[in-house]
Amino acid sequence: MKRKIYIENMPLEKATALFEQRLEEADCYHIKAEEITVSNSLGRITASPVYARRSSPHYISSAMDGIAVKASSTAGATEVNPVTLKADDFFEVDTGDYIPAQFDAVIMIEEVNFINETAQIIKAAVPWQHIRSVGEDIVTYDMLIPSFTRIGPYEVASLITAGVNTLNAIKKPIVGIIPTGTELVDRGSEEMAPGLIVESNSHMLKALCEEWGAVALRHEIVIDDREQIRRAIEEMTPQADIIIVCSGSSAGREDYTASLLEEMGELIVHGLAVRPGKPAILGLIEQKPFIGVPGYPVSADLIFGLFAKPLIYKMQGLLPPPMPELECNAARKMPSPMGVDDFINVSIVKIAERYHCFPLVKGAGITTSLVKSDGVLCIKRGMEGLQAGDNCIVTLRQPLNVIDESIITIGSHDLSIDILADILQKRYGLRLISINAGSMGGIFSLRRKETHFAGLHLLDYETGGYNVSYVQKYLSGDNWLLINLVKRDQGLIIQKNNPLNISSLKDLKNPQIRYINRQNGSGTRILLDYLLEKEDIRPQEINGYNREEYTHLAVAASIKNGASDTGLGIYSSARALNLDFIPITREQYDLCILPQLFSTVNLERLYTAILSDEFKDRIMAIGGYNLDSTGQIITSNNI
Amino acid sequence: MKRKIYIENMPLEKATALFEQRLEEADCYHIKAEEITVSNSLGRITASPVYARRSSPHYISSAMDGIAVKASSTAGATEVNPVTLKADDFFEVDTGDYIPAQFDAVIMIEEVNFINETAQIIKAAVPWQHIRSVGEDIVTYDMLIPSFTRIGPYEVASLITAGVNTLNAIKKPIVGIIPTGTELVDRGSEEMAPGLIVESNSHMLKALCEEWGAVALRHEIVIDDREQIRRAIEEMTPQADIIIVCSGSSAGREDYTASLLEEMGELIVHGLAVRPGKPAILGLIEQKPFIGVPGYPVSADLIFGLFAKPLIYKMQGLLPPPMPELECNAARKMPSPMGVDDFINVSIVKIAERYHCFPLVKGAGITTSLVKSDGVLCIKRGMEGLQAGDNCIVTLRQPLNVIDESIITIGSHDLSIDILADILQKRYGLRLISINAGSMGGIFSLRRKETHFAGLHLLDYETGGYNVSYVQKYLSGDNWLLINLVKRDQGLIIQKNNPLNISSLKDLKNPQIRYINRQNGSGTRILLDYLLEKEDIRPQEINGYNREEYTHLAVAASIKNGASDTGLGIYSSARALNLDFIPITREQYDLCILPQLFSTVNLERLYTAILSDEFKDRIMAIGGYNLDSTGQIITSNNI
Repeated sequence: MKRKIYIENMPLEKATALFEQRLEEADCYHIKAEEITVSNSLGRITASPVYARRSSPHYISSAMDGIAVKASSTAGATEVNPVTLKADDFFEVDTGDYIPAQFDAVIMIEEVNFINETAQIIKAAVPWQHIRSVGEDIVTYDMLIPSFTRIGPYEVASLITAGVNTLNAIKKPIVGIIPTGTELVDRGSEEMAPGLIVESNSHMLKALCEEWGAVALRHEIVIDDREQIRRAIEEMTPQADIIIVCSGSSAGREDYTASLLEEMGELIVHGLAVRPGKPAILGLIEQKPFIGVPGYPVSADLIFGLFAKPLIYKMQGLLPPPMPELECNAARKMPSPMGVDDFINVSIVKIAERYHCFPLVKGAGITTSLVKSDGVLCIKRGMEGLQAGDNCIVTLRQPLNVIDESIITIGSHDLSIDILADILQKRYGLRLISINAGSMGGIFSLRRKETHFAGLHLLDYETGGYNVSYVQKYLSGDNWLLINLVKRDQGLIIQKNNPLNISSLKDLKNPQIRYINRQNGSGTRILLDYLLEKEDIRPQEINGYNREEYTHLAVAASIKNGASDTGLGIYSSARALNLDFIPITREQYDLCILPQLFSTVNLERLYTAILSDEFKDRIMAIGGYNLDSTGQIITSNNI
Repeated sequence: MKRKIYIENMPLEKATALFEQRLEEADCYHIKAEEITVSNSLGRITASPVYARRSSPHYISSAMDGIAVKASSTAGATEVNPVTLKADDFFEVDTGDYIPAQFDAVIMIEEVNFINETAQIIKAAVPWQHIRSVGEDIVTYDMLIPSFTRIGPYEVASLITAGVNTLNAIKKPIVGIIPTGTELVDRGSEEMAPGLIVESNSHMLKALCEEWGAVALRHEIVIDDREQIRRAIEEMTPQADIIIVCSGSSAGREDYTASLLEEMGELIVHGLAVRPGKPAILGLIEQKPFIGVPGYPVSADLIFGLFAKPLIYKMQGLLPPPMPELECNAARKMPSPMGVDDFINVSIVKIAERYHCFPLVKGAGITTSLVKSDGVLCIKRGMEGLQAGDNCIVTLRQPLNVIDESIITIGSHDLSIDILADILQKRYGLRLISINAGSMGGIFSLRRKETHFAGLHLLDYETGGYNVSYVQKYLSGDNWLLINLVKRDQGLIIQKNNPLNISSLKDLKNPQIRYINRQNGSGTRILLDYLLEKEDIRPQEINGYNREEYTHLAVAASIKNGASDTGLGIYSSARALNLDFIPITREQYDLCILPQLFSTVNLERLYTAILSDEFKDRIMAIGGYNLDSTGQIITSNNI
């Protein structure tokens, strides 16, 4: 059984320096140029300076509305002794009009008396008065645009005006991307077989290339076969300026790439002390940069950003645009191994004039952590990680104005929260960041004042009511407001047509029935435990009591995909995935809001969204909801 | 003679509010959507929320390299009493591999003893240990992306992973652009007739549309004929979401547009209290926004940016990205009429930790002022303008890092300055802003410490030497360094083959010979005055002594285009425009540098560029230069 070959753990700075040095030595940063037409030049970078080929204006012209005259013909004119010019001796001009060669001055229209066909002048003109120069805007041979400069809309206009038809532009670097992996397919179906993965990394890298000014050539997927990978590299190398091999997402697959590179070119680095992205490969082939990108999307993005991005910019004569940084408060503990540069994608929200960053779900396979990322935090090698409350510097991926126009909800999840988020984004450009932490997670986040509001559905075993006793207990010292968002049906989500004949909670005692549970502290878990106690079922009697998911939809998806048979959850999740549902209870899902953390305008936007017909219509279309008391204040605390 | 119809002078805020209100009432902001494929979605905006169609992973998988087992089959295993699993009872898995339905736990590879075909287990597995959930990344029906959100590279990857093939995107607004003007041509030649202008505004606006996410349809050029303009508007209106009519650059042409709009639709505003851009037209036609854009490029850009930009973004469900602002010191007096919002394009440079802004050459026809613009300063209606030294707020058009990586030279111009600029940009990404103010202008800018260095060629009438006595006199209290850049030939630039038989300065007394002079304070003007005195020629004897240009190239261009017959200038300008040249003297062109205003690294870059072979080779290729003492320190002042 062939296992991993030796992988180093090279510090990032050392690997970067080594790679850059070898690329420099191999003349990889050499700029390639091509002649392009001005009509195709928008967004391109000049390879050499562009000189004007024509002056603008290319003729002398009038700076006024008036008449063009020969100054000498007006000599001596005064109010008392006006000079009268015959029709041939003047020429009416608008501002910008050409001044024919026989004239050398312009008299303003206001200072001319037109009498029949003649013009009466009461003041002598000084030669060249009110006449605009040739080349007032552009002079032939002016350097219009220096080398290594982006052609924007104004440059396009200026080039056209200056008579430039073609220019020497930097050729866009061509990035050859080879996706490898036997488990990969190009296009999945909703019923694709387990174990298959739809190849997405190459498309992500291709899109990044486009954003950075390069062109990507994607090779078709290559299975994990050394010879086939070799042939793909041989085929791609002559066509591209940078060669990228994407590993499959399973471990150990990059071994072929590294050993092939050793054979075919030069392996410079294999293995970095970074997380994620350790198995990265850096090298040279046919004097071209070669990067082996790990298979997990988050690793692929990190390695591509660290090594391909500066390279793509440099090959265009540019530096990557600076990434703004922001000082944040770490809202969560972020432990980190000492030996690596640890890159963590975070969400950022501004609460009470401070920016709080929340680490996104970890795992190099989580593409949604890239989608949701507002920035990246790097815990440097030799550092132990962050404690909650620590200051840290985040490199932003979102513009600061998007972050500033965001609110956050941490707590229990419901599909209505997504709909609220959509309405707020659509109507106000206000982003709602939503973190699923269960109802108790929401309570604690409210207590720490790190969330604007929280969705809660906490059953009070004693009163049978929801939420009120919890917020009164845990948030007694704070201002808060509890309003109802929805009432919703909870029950057992089951396979379509109920093949296992589940009829009630009692059936969970059957060890053949694989249950999927919600995490501790979630309202649904609290509800389950209450129901189990009432029915006298012990947790250890249930197969899967310890298997935890973090959302209703995740529970439904597990059942949908046959990974489990049933779980307690809301009707809307069953409905969304076309599963069956055994209703058990109707519960209250409220929002606990901390109004003092909101701006007046955003609080009003939230209320307006909740009370909108659009919100109600969209919720009712899902089913399993009751909106009788939506938006009603249940109770509040006003300190 | 038909002159202007009545144009208002409506304050900008009032016009904006009125236009927006009418657009709102006419439902112009209505969002249009279309179905697009994910492969064409990069950069597009979602019109409705996108939900996942497949979970990812869509199967339970291993979180470890190890073996998949049925947990119950490992019950009771200890180091003392290991359990041995037969080949059928376990399944080797890598991280991420599918776990077949008969198994429900994974044991790490390190904890397994492989003996022949069997696996020895020394610790019982807990059900579901080391098994990854279905949907760890994405769960079917998760809201992946809300409405009105841009699809970037990560969204593309996430959509592919979530089994989404098509999505509902906002249709790019279509902007119909109609260029009008009898003087306009589509493509000029180097010998085009005087009075013709190459149409460039529509191309600039088209490029701006692309940058803002819209698609532009350009109509062919329409001459100034009311019926033809009417037909063009009729043709464009059904095809476009926004209709733009660009006036020709001469005054009064927008009258047709306004009166046609009154007839065909609704004229909302005609005439704004802004500079430039007063004749702008705002209206509605067939319930679509209509903007009449003035003909001068700087006016066109301003009006398009003020009215079309927010509209284009709003039609995509977006707000225009915020434009950063910067507090600057007005380096020059900027007078402004009280009655208008006065928009001034400026260059910005950072000197000694302060940003200084310099107004670019005014005139709404100057496209280069758009190319060179680092930002726009607005002197509000009711304000009188800025004094030199006043603080002001500039809305940036260039990223701050480009401004920060800039140095400036104010003084006499030489082609070698352009080449220096090109080398600095290419090698270091360092921008050299160059402002032509003549040698004495350079001296005064050095004195005010508003320039890093200045090009000087100031002849001392008494000593016959250059520059030294001037800098000693005017900069006695400062640290400075005078180094030679080039020596160059000055003489009379004349038409090719000298049709007027000019042979020396004496010929300038001939009134048939139209001279073109340089501005007061320029080294060449000082040289001319010195030479005239020596030759005993009085300025008033010269036809054109009062006609002034600001650069050598402008003088040459005036001669090239027949607007004048001769002027004093440098050989390289004559050569660049393929003119003849009568050499008169060789002069010294030095740089006076203020080292304390530079960062160490930038000063070194400047020296390195001056001393580079590339600089010398490029200068020598022009001709008329001597580089014997290039880079040599002539003298310095060290306080």
